[in-house]
Amino acid sequence: MTQKTFVNPIAWKKDRIRIIDQTKLPVVLSYEDCQSVSDVWWAIKKLKVRGAPLIGIAGALGFLLGMQKTKSRDPRILLATAKRLKVYLNSSRPTAVNLHWALSLVFKVVEENQNKPKLEMILALKKEVERIIHEDVQMCFQMSAYGSRLVKSGDSLLTVCNAGGLATSGYGTALGVFYRAKEESKKIKVYACETRPLLQGARLTTWELMHNHVDVTLICDNMAADLMRRKKIDAVFVGADRIAANGDFANKIGTYSLAVAAWYHKIPFYCVAPFSTIDMSLAEGRLIPIEERGAEEVVSLYFKKPIAPKGIHVFNPSFDVTPASLTTAIITEQGIIRPSFRENLKEIYGYVAKKS
Amino acid sequence: MTQKTFVNPIAWKKDRIRIIDQTKLPVVLSYEDCQSVSDVWWAIKKLKVRGAPLIGIAGALGFLLGMQKTKSRDPRILLATAKRLKVYLNSSRPTAVNLHWALSLVFKVVEENQNKPKLEMILALKKEVERIIHEDVQMCFQMSAYGSRLVKSGDSLLTVCNAGGLATSGYGTALGVFYRAKEESKKIKVYACETRPLLQGARLTTWELMHNHVDVTLICDNMAADLMRRKKIDAVFVGADRIAANGDFANKIGTYSLAVAAWYHKIPFYCVAPFSTIDMSLAEGRLIPIEERGAEEVVSLYFKKPIAPKGIHVFNPSFDVTPASLTTAIITEQGIIRPSFRENLKEIYGYVAKKS
Repeated sequence: MTQKTFVNPIAWKKDRIRIIDQTKLPVVLSYEDCQSVSDVWWAIKKLKVRGAPLIGIAGALGFLLGMQKTKSRDPRILLATAKRLKVYLNSSRPTAVNLHWALSLVFKVVEENQNKPKLEMILALKKEVERIIHEDVQMCFQMSAYGSRLVKSGDSLLTVCNAGGLATSGYGTALGVFYRAKEESKKIKVYACETRPLLQGARLTTWELMHNHVDVTLICDNMAADLMRRKKIDAVFVGADRIAANGDFANKIGTYSLAVAAWYHKIPFYCVAPFSTIDMSLAEGRLIPIEERGAEEVVSLYFKKPIAPKGIHVFNPSFDVTPASLTTAIITEQGIIRPSFRENLKEIYGYVAKKS
Repeated sequence: MTQKTFVNPIAWKKDRIRIIDQTKLPVVLSYEDCQSVSDVWWAIKKLKVRGAPLIGIAGALGFLLGMQKTKSRDPRILLATAKRLKVYLNSSRPTAVNLHWALSLVFKVVEENQNKPKLEMILALKKEVERIIHEDVQMCFQMSAYGSRLVKSGDSLLTVCNAGGLATSGYGTALGVFYRAKEESKKIKVYACETRPLLQGARLTTWELMHNHVDVTLICDNMAADLMRRKKIDAVFVGADRIAANGDFANKIGTYSLAVAAWYHKIPFYCVAPFSTIDMSLAEGRLIPIEERGAEEVVSLYFKKPIAPKGIHVFNPSFDVTPASLTTAIITEQGIIRPSFRENLKEIYGYVAKKS
C-alpha cells in the first residue's frame, strides 16, 4: 500500500502546530500555525481542523504544545496543567469521542511520568503523539482494505461530509474505502452530498477525490433519495463521530436522513470509523451529546447576502444519530462488524482490550 | 375569509406585467415590469416568477400581452401568433403542468374568437385571464379550508420550497393551509426546509410566514429526518407541479426525501395543489418530464465564493417524483382525496369535467 493523501492536514513543527485551514478550501489551500493551546482550541471550534480522528490528533498535539510551553518544572504544577489542558481542549467540541480518547492517552503519559524530569516527560509525550498519528494512518489503511471488500467494480457510492484524508492523519475512513477500491482497479463512481450548512462535502470531499482522480459528482443533500430511487446508488459509506455500545452512531447532520432513504431503497449502509470511535460507556445513541451550532452558519456564513429574513429562528444541530437498525455494517480496523452490534461490539471490545 | 397575502406576486398593468423578482427576496422586495413576451419567458426561466400556479398565470398573462402587442388584425395571422406564443411560453419550464393548462385555456379563447374583431378577442382574453386569476384565489381558499381540517392546534408542521402566496395569485397551497389553520385560531409551529439549491424555503417561505405572523423555524434540508425522529413533526404539507393519474406527483427536489422520511416515521404526508395540477394524460409519475438545471445553481449562485472545486460534476434535477404510496392524501379545491388515488382521481375528474 503506497498511496498517501496528497496533503497533510496537521503537522508538528517543533514549537507550533501547522494546520490546513479547512474553512478556506476549496478556494485556497492555506496553512496556519497554531502557536498556543488557545489557537488549537479555536482551530477546532471554528472547524479549521475537523473530522473526528483529526480532532483527536489536534487535541493530542495541542496538549503536547501546552505541556511543552509550560515554564514550570514542578511535578505538581505540571500535573495540574495537564488536567487543565485536558478539560480545556476537550471542551472545544462535544460530539466526537476521539478528542476525549486521545486526550486521555496523552494525559495518562503525564501521569505515568509525573515523577520524571520534565524533558523526559515531554519526550514520552511526543512519542505517544507520534504513536497515535502512526496508528491512525495504519488504521485508515486497515479500515479501507476491509471496506473495499464491500465494493464491486462498477459501483456507484454515496457519501456525506468529509471522512477523508482531511479528516484523519492518513487515508481517510469512508473515503479511504474509495481510494483502496480504486487502487484495487475497481471502477467506481462517487456521489458527494454537499452537507449543509458548512458544505464539507462540496468543499472538501470533492476537492480530495478530484485530486486523487476519483470520479466524483456533487449533489445537494435533498437529491440523495431521488438518486437512490433512480437506482444510481449501490452503497452508502459514511464516517462516525461516536458509536454507542449498541451500534447507534452520531455523524454529521444528514447521515440519518441518508440511512432512512438507504433502508427504504434496500441499499447497504456502512459506517467506517476507527475502533476508538466506539464509546462503550454509552448504552445507546440517544445518550451521545449533540452539538448545536449558531444560526449564522445556516443563514449567512457561506453566502454573499443573507439567505433568510433577519431574525428568523433556526434549528442547527451539527450531528444526528443513526440507529443501529438502519446500519448494514460498521467497518473498523478490527474488521467488518455486523449485527447484532451490541453483542459483536462487546466481544471485539473485550478482545481488543485483552490484546493491548 | 378575509385574509389576503400581503403582496401580489404578479399584476396586469395595461400594457405590461408587473412581477416581484423573487430571486431578490428576502433581501429586497423589488418589482419588475415585463414589457414583452420574451421578458415573461425569461422571468419564468430565471425563476423571478415561480410556483406552479403562478407560472400558469404568468403564462396566460404573457399570452395576453403577446396577442395585444401583435399589430396585425388578420385572423389567420392572429391565430398563427397565438399558436407560436403557446409553444414558446410553454417551453420556459417543462415540469409544472399549470403552464400548459393555462395556455390551453387562453389559446381556446383565441380559437373561439378567431372570426371576431381583434378588440373583441382581446377583451375575451382579458376576461379569461381574470377568470383564471380569480379562480386561483378561490381555489387557494378552498384547498386551505380542506387542508386545515387535517391540522390540530399544537401541531408542528413541515414544508419544503414555497407553496405560498408567492407561488399563486392567492393564499398559497401548502402555506394556505397554515394561514387558514392560524385564522381558525389553531396554534401551529412551522418548520421550513431551506430547499437547496435555490433556497426558496429559506428565502421565500420564511419571509412570507414571518410577514403573516406564523411561527416559523428554518432548517437545512438534511435536518428534516432528524426532526421527525425527535418527534417534532406532526404532518408534512407540500405543493405539487404535476400529479399523474395514479397520484404520483412531481414537486421541488427534496420532496421525495421528505416523503420517505415521513413514511418511515409514520407522519402524515399531504400534497396540496389545485385540481388543474392533475395530468390525467400521464398514467404514472415516471412519465413526468423532470427539468435538470445548470451546475452553477449548486456550485456558486448564492455564494460569495465558489463552494466546490472548478470543473466538478454536478447532478441538479429541479424536481423529484413522490410515489402515491408515500402520500397520505392529496388536497385540492375539490376536497381531500385519499387512496386509492387512481380510482378516486378518475372519479372526481369525471365529475369535474361533467360540471364544467
